[in-house]
Amino acid sequence: MTANLTLALDAMGGDKAPGAIVKGIDIARRRYPDVRFLLFGDERRIAPIVKRFSKLGEICEVRHTGDAVGSEDKPSQALRRGKTTSMRLAIDAVRDGEAAGILSAGNTGALMAMAKFVLKNVPGIDRPAIAGFFPSMRGESVMLDLGANVDCTADNLAQFGLMGAAFARVVLGIQKPTVGLLNVGTEALKGHEIVKGAAEMLRGAHLPLEFAGFVEGSDFGLGTVDVFVTDGFTGNIALKATEGTARFYAWNLRRAFRRSIMSRIGYLLARPALVALRERLDPRTYNGALFVGLNGVVIKSHGGSDARGFASALGVAVDMVRGNFNEHLIEDLEAFAQDDAPPPRVAVS
Amino acid sequence: MTANLTLALDAMGGDKAPGAIVKGIDIARRRYPDVRFLLFGDERRIAPIVKRFSKLGEICEVRHTGDAVGSEDKPSQALRRGKTTSMRLAIDAVRDGEAAGILSAGNTGALMAMAKFVLKNVPGIDRPAIAGFFPSMRGESVMLDLGANVDCTADNLAQFGLMGAAFARVVLGIQKPTVGLLNVGTEALKGHEIVKGAAEMLRGAHLPLEFAGFVEGSDFGLGTVDVFVTDGFTGNIALKATEGTARFYAWNLRRAFRRSIMSRIGYLLARPALVALRERLDPRTYNGALFVGLNGVVIKSHGGSDARGFASALGVAVDMVRGNFNEHLIEDLEAFAQDDAPPPRVAVS
Repeated sequence: MTANLTLALDAMGGDKAPGAIVKGIDIARRRYPDVRFLLFGDERRIAPIVKRFSKLGEICEVRHTGDAVGSEDKPSQALRRGKTTSMRLAIDAVRDGEAAGILSAGNTGALMAMAKFVLKNVPGIDRPAIAGFFPSMRGESVMLDLGANVDCTADNLAQFGLMGAAFARVVLGIQKPTVGLLNVGTEALKGHEIVKGAAEMLRGAHLPLEFAGFVEGSDFGLGTVDVFVTDGFTGNIALKATEGTARFYAWNLRRAFRRSIMSRIGYLLARPALVALRERLDPRTYNGALFVGLNGVVIKSHGGSDARGFASALGVAVDMVRGNFNEHLIEDLEAFAQDDAPPPRVAVS
Repeated sequence: MTANLTLALDAMGGDKAPGAIVKGIDIARRRYPDVRFLLFGDERRIAPIVKRFSKLGEICEVRHTGDAVGSEDKPSQALRRGKTTSMRLAIDAVRDGEAAGILSAGNTGALMAMAKFVLKNVPGIDRPAIAGFFPSMRGESVMLDLGANVDCTADNLAQFGLMGAAFARVVLGIQKPTVGLLNVGTEALKGHEIVKGAAEMLRGAHLPLEFAGFVEGSDFGLGTVDVFVTDGFTGNIALKATEGTARFYAWNLRRAFRRSIMSRIGYLLARPALVALRERLDPRTYNGALFVGLNGVVIKSHGGSDARGFASALGVAVDMVRGNFNEHLIEDLEAFAQDDAPPPRVAVS
């Protein structure tokens, strides 16, 4: 089961491509020695970097193309005219069964549009979503949708719940994940009709997840649930708000430590602990937004991510493929569809 | 202009009422010696506390009622059956011209429902909103709506922009505030039709504000704009997400400082600077959600806030009344309505 896993990489996507991508593979191969990589992009730029790492020659294959999707290209434009780009060819490799998953640090909109067009939705999923995970007081939680769908129906949200739970099981190793719907309060009568409808659908479902009802923005840090479900508009803004707040807090902290000689010395003494804290909260560890709901594993690495961030994203891809993410999702969707049927009447004696 | 300003207080609202409320008045009166207070609630509980503070006798008047809105009461229930509660009587005092503003730390939904019913909307405002302000790298920013309206139209969002800008001018002292619409990206084609429509309306308006287009969740910490505008669903979740993240960060920091003897000593040396940081970020400083768009100043203090938090909220109320918040808002609304008319055709020679 662990042999012959191949991942396709858009080696030209992201600010630090292709260097950071190749270096990321060299970090990832130590943890995943039996994974192979298909690198799509400019061979003249990629091959010399691959050669610098002695172990990469036998696990990497470079497929040349001179075309790449630009970071400013519109998704529709990439879809129509980008058939020979490194991103598109990497996606095609998944469709053709040459690779089990694709990673790109390039243009998010183009990647989503091309992946949807080429790979198609998993049957039963109306709208693929972008999922991500982040640290909390209880460990790690997943959130989706992070921006693929700015308008969502109750059905969409319920399906996001299933996808998030499958991810929490397969990648975070949580047997029966708790799923919460983001809302403006926890009481059942709060919020708009869409969240109320989704809650209704998830409440009675017989699935390997525990529906926890409504949760609030303050629950992110607490990690109240394993899976936070919301529409792509709210999810995108909420996720970026947490990132911005963390940066604001770190900025204030640096200023506080620079206030006096004593606080500078204090910083030096506490430094090892503070460095450990920074590593625990390092956004690179949580790199990799997942496009879930497509026939194939599709991962978007952050455009500015370095080799370590890229290696983390590769790890998520491997976990999703080896954990049979899509197979689990399809099973859950079938169970969920059957729940829709009215329950059999049981005579109570 | 500064004489005879009276504020009505729901002295029974909030977890620490009436004690923290009376103490909060005693803090606030030092900064605002010429403000008078009408306290509504149980005289037997309030009067003895007022007596403990020697200066409060002449600036506080207690109006007795034995009824109070419960924290679990439904808004509709409070509206129908709460006509003799401390909250309702305090709102009535604003309608009757006895007070210029009302503060309560009680049930938010009930306060909003009763204030809307009794005070009515400012002409030109379709939906009142809840606004709040928070610290950023650039100083302070306002955000609205924080939860009054989970579904919003483009008109609602544009009106929120006007209200937020009036608040930034009057309370934060920013002459021509920058206003941004929260969205999933800054490009004009991002987001749903509602934010696009609101952007269209705000873009051409001739108002004492500068429309900065779309902003993202990450802009909170940066303070990219003075006013962040969004619907009550997204705003509520985003605000609580930033609060939760700040708490998560502080929790991690405390753990980091406890890691070793050295880091504990480091903490002691840096302590004054860290305490100053905590004060700067103290949520009590930013206490007071404002119900804007009503005929009268209505402030909701956090239910758990202490005397200092309550004093901050009182300060916001005073600034709004003295800065003629509603008069400014009405002027802006009139200018905005005229912008709707097609611009006069000018012959270009």
